[in-house]
Order: sequence, then C-alpha cells, then structure tokens
Amino acid sequence: MTSPRRVVLLAGGFGGARMAHGFALLGDAVDLTVIGNTGDDIELHGLHISPDLDTVMYTLAGMANERTGWGVRDETWSAAEMLARYGQPTWFSLGDRDLATHITRSSRLAAGARLTTVTAELARALGVRAALLPMSDDPVRTKVRTAQGWLDFQDYFVRRGHADDVLELRFEGIERALPSAEVVRSLEAADVIVIAPSNPFVSVAPIVGLPGMIEALGRQPAPVVAVSPIVGGAALRGPAAAMMGSVAKQPPTSAGVAAHYAVTWPGLVDVLVIDAADAAEAAAVAATGIEPLVTRTVIGQVEDRRRLAEELLRLGR
Amino acid sequence: MTSPRRVVLLAGGFGGARMAHGFALLGDAVDLTVIGNTGDDIELHGLHISPDLDTVMYTLAGMANERTGWGVRDETWSAAEMLARYGQPTWFSLGDRDLATHITRSSRLAAGARLTTVTAELARALGVRAALLPMSDDPVRTKVRTAQGWLDFQDYFVRRGHADDVLELRFEGIERALPSAEVVRSLEAADVIVIAPSNPFVSVAPIVGLPGMIEALGRQPAPVVAVSPIVGGAALRGPAAAMMGSVAKQPPTSAGVAAHYAVTWPGLVDVLVIDAADAAEAAAVAATGIEPLVTRTVIGQVEDRRRLAEELLRLGR
Repeated sequence: MTSPRRVVLLAGGFGGARMAHGFALLGDAVDLTVIGNTGDDIELHGLHISPDLDTVMYTLAGMANERTGWGVRDETWSAAEMLARYGQPTWFSLGDRDLATHITRSSRLAAGARLTTVTAELARALGVRAALLPMSDDPVRTKVRTAQGWLDFQDYFVRRGHADDVLELRFEGIERALPSAEVVRSLEAADVIVIAPSNPFVSVAPIVGLPGMIEALGRQPAPVVAVSPIVGGAALRGPAAAMMGSVAKQPPTSAGVAAHYAVTWPGLVDVLVIDAADAAEAAAVAATGIEPLVTRTVIGQVEDRRRLAEELLRLGR
Repeated sequence: MTSPRRVVLLAGGFGGARMAHGFALLGDAVDLTVIGNTGDDIELHGLHISPDLDTVMYTLAGMANERTGWGVRDETWSAAEMLARYGQPTWFSLGDRDLATHITRSSRLAAGARLTTVTAELARALGVRAALLPMSDDPVRTKVRTAQGWLDFQDYFVRRGHADDVLELRFEGIERALPSAEVVRSLEAADVIVIAPSNPFVSVAPIVGLPGMIEALGRQPAPVVAVSPIVGGAALRGPAAAMMGSVAKQPPTSAGVAAHYAVTWPGLVDVLVIDAADAAEAAAVAATGIEPLVTRTVIGQVEDRRRLAEELLRLGR
C-alpha cells in the first residue's frame, strides 16, 4: 500500500469545485487540500458569505446544485421571499439551507474563531474529507474597475451579471493579509500543486498574490500544474476570456493563459494543461517556458473529473 | 365621523397578540399602539430574536401560525435542518421565514438603528397598521430562578418547556433601561390603556417595572384596564397559573390576579376583566379596590377578539 499523494489545489468556485471533486473521487489515493479564494467574500445582511469556499464545500459534500453552479441542491427560498418583503437587497440569491451556512460562519467568527477554523468545522459537519482552507484569515476584497468606476466584486459579478468591461482589478487589504499557517504547511508538504481551471484574474491572482505566497510556492519542491480555464477561445464559465483581453492584453486562448502566467509569475507554473481542442497551441504554450499537457479539460461529467485528476496526479513528485 | 380611540396595549406574546388582533379588527375606530415585552428577547446564532414582538407582528400581519401560537404560518424549516447538521443549538425553533425577520432586525441593529425603529420598519413592511413598540431600546433580560439555579428565560421556557417551579424572577438590566420616548408619548395620548391577558410575572412585569413607567402610567388620565390571563383556575397558556402560587403567593384565580396587581402596583389597575366562568370571584376582585368586569375573555376565535376589544373600548375616556 502506497501512502496517499498530497495534492494542494488553488481554487476559485466553479472550476475549482469540479477539479476538487475529481481528486476527492480518487479516495484514499489522495490527501487533498483545497486553498480557496476569499477575495469574492461579501458581507450581506450582516452575514459573512464565502461563495468560493462554499461552492467547493457543497460540491465535495455532494450537495451542490450542479445546474446553477452555486448553492445547494433541493434548496428552498422562504427566507429570501421574506427578506424581499423587508426591502432587503435580493440580488445575491441566498437559499434557506445556504443561509444556515452563513449564519453559522458569522456567529462563529463573531465569537472570535478564525475563518480557517470555521471553514474546517463547516466542511467536517457536511462530511467533507478534504482539508478546505481559506487562503487567509485576513480580509481581502476584490474590486473591479469598469466604466462605472470601482465596484465590489459581487456587485460586478452577480448584481450586474459581469456585463461590464473590466479595466483593472485590485485586491483590497491584500498587502496586510497573510496566508494562514495551514496554507503554508500544506504547500511545504505537497506532492503536486494544482492551479484549478479557475479565473486567473479574480480567482487565482488573489491567492498567489498574498504576501509571501509566491515565495512559499517557489520554496516547495512539488511541480505546479495549472489547468487552463479557456477552451476553444472561450471560458467554460464567467468572464475569464473577456478579462484575458481587457486586463492581461492577451488573446483569449490557452496560449494566452500560458503567456499571462509566465509574465505575471515567472517560473511559477511548470505545466499548463490545455484541452485537446487547443492542441494546436501546444507549441505557443511551450514557447512561454511552460510545458504543455494536452488532454480533455472539460469536466462537467463526474467521470471526466476523476480522469483529469488521475492524469494530474501522475505529474506529481 | 368621530376620531379614533387611542388604545395602548401592554402585551406579551400569545395573549397580547390575540388582544391586539381584536383592536386591529376595529379598523379606523381605533388608533392602536402595542407596547411589547422584550424581556424574553434572546441572542441565538448571533441573531437578535424578539419573540413577543414577533408574535404580535405576525398576528397583526395575518401571518401567524395560530395553531402553535408562535412563528409564521406555512413555514419551511430548511435552514433549521442545516443548522442542526452544523451542530448549532436547535431547541429554539427558527423557521426560514421567521429567520429573515431576525436577520433583518440584527443587521439593522448592527448598523446602529434603534430596536424601536427596526420594529416599526419590519411591521410596516408586513402591512401592520398598528404602532408596534418594544418597551425599551435598552436590553432587559428575564432570568428565572428554579431548583436548577438561575436560568435565561428562553432556556426555562422553551428548552426546558417551563417544567421547573419558578422560585424567583429578575429582569437583568431593567434598572438601566428606559421606556422609549415613543412609549411615553403613547401613554400620554391614550384614551384607554389595556394590560393584555398576558403572564403578569414575565410579560407584564418587565414593562411596568421599567424605571419611570409606573409614574408615566400614573400621570396619564386614561383608565388602566387589565384582562385576567386566568380562567377557571388555569392559565389559557403557559406557566402563569403556577407562578401565581410560587412567585406571588396568590391562588391561581382571577381574584388572585387582582390581588397580585393591587399589591404589586397599588392604584395602577382600575378595572380587571374576568371571564364569566369566574363571575363568582367578582366580589373578591372588588375587595382589592379594582373594579371587576365580567365577560367572556377566551379569545381564540376572531369574533371573540373583536367583541372583547369593543367592550374594552367602552371603558375608555
């Protein structure tokens, strides 16, 4: 019997959850740690909401609403109806089950618990075996500059349906935020570090951009393998393709993703996994100094998630 | 057209809500202000819950669960199920719609709003025409001494099902609490002040016991009419009858209620309304210096609520 391979996954919500699910499906062969983006976190109705962590958690707990890509399956909406009657903002949909997560999180945080502790408690209670870590216990809030000026991330993303061109991004508080001790330790022990097929600008960048994070990633001996979130010139979901042009001045292609990673964090990414549909871009990826791996990266189906996770595991030390 | 009669009702939850409903049914003939007990308030899951105010509010909004006597009709319980999975305390039932009330209240309080303001906002949003006032914006918390020692009120009442003998009561914080300006103004303008058929010890006493309250009640010219919560030697609901003996050393009768009010707040109550079933106690009530009014006080049915309200209105100035 071999000991489990230690996989650390840097994850946003949608793509991060699916990739995490793939590794979780490998059972005892993998010791999975997910480092989740908290730049998307929002305070609403006095509650602390961590959308990316929750999407990963619900997915790993087998409770996710796979159709919408967020929230809980078989959800009810009674509280939301009442919140609307009370004139509370309703643009950020909060189901009743989901609300219990935010209530519990907020109540524990108010009692002085770290977000890392609370996240672990919530995940454990739902039967999640993977270690789910917020990237930091310190607040980081992604802000998006558009023609409307600077917007809160969820205001841009949910309220306005990410319809605005994004001109600039900043991560408020990041210079005072630190990766948690648990995050640093997980990286030190990793056999492979995977950057999920999440948005490089708003999901991956807040994590990698934490003070000390790039050094911690550089210090550890495991290969860093990124999965491109772009397939056939489009993002599987969300505004990643549009941001490739407006933020990174790169084409919305996997080669563009490689170039963006190579320019932004030189030497960080060892391998970029790109979809077979983009096989023609392999040489362009290699030209950035990042090794391409061509396979199928569309992982809506459970069997595809597992297969991709197995392929990534083979790249580990 | 005559101007509306200004009725001020001092109310707990169950009996207070039914009596308030009776006055509300009289429509434009009545300008109703309900002063609600907040000694039963509780902080749970980081949320501020005002059970007595909410029971009155939901009843006046036509949303109350009349079967249970608390909470909202056609309620769902998804959040409660999840809170249980998270290991949160579940002895205080919180339905999904009800939860939205507590979330909104807590979020507004955290933003610096007074409980008086928030309560008015919530009630207005649900279409309640009466003025619903918490007795104070300052925290008062009812504590109950039993053989188990001092318990928080809801711990005694809900968690332990008011099964313990109550030896003593105190209202933590009451000496530093003040009736709000709105409460004082409503008393000054009242044509009749009604003490609802609520528990004299845990619903009425925290209101009347506020510093300055007994003076404010004495100053105003309207008659004070109390409705006995005891019928045929038993409380219509809850532990009032048991407390008559253990707290007030009075028999669990309407005459006992009269004696308790006469001893505790001499001269406060002008009239005690007792049920026809207790007609034989009228002389004993009169002997306390409080004028008895014998009628039907069981007001489970809507038509009885309206009729009793009409009878009380005739006692006003």
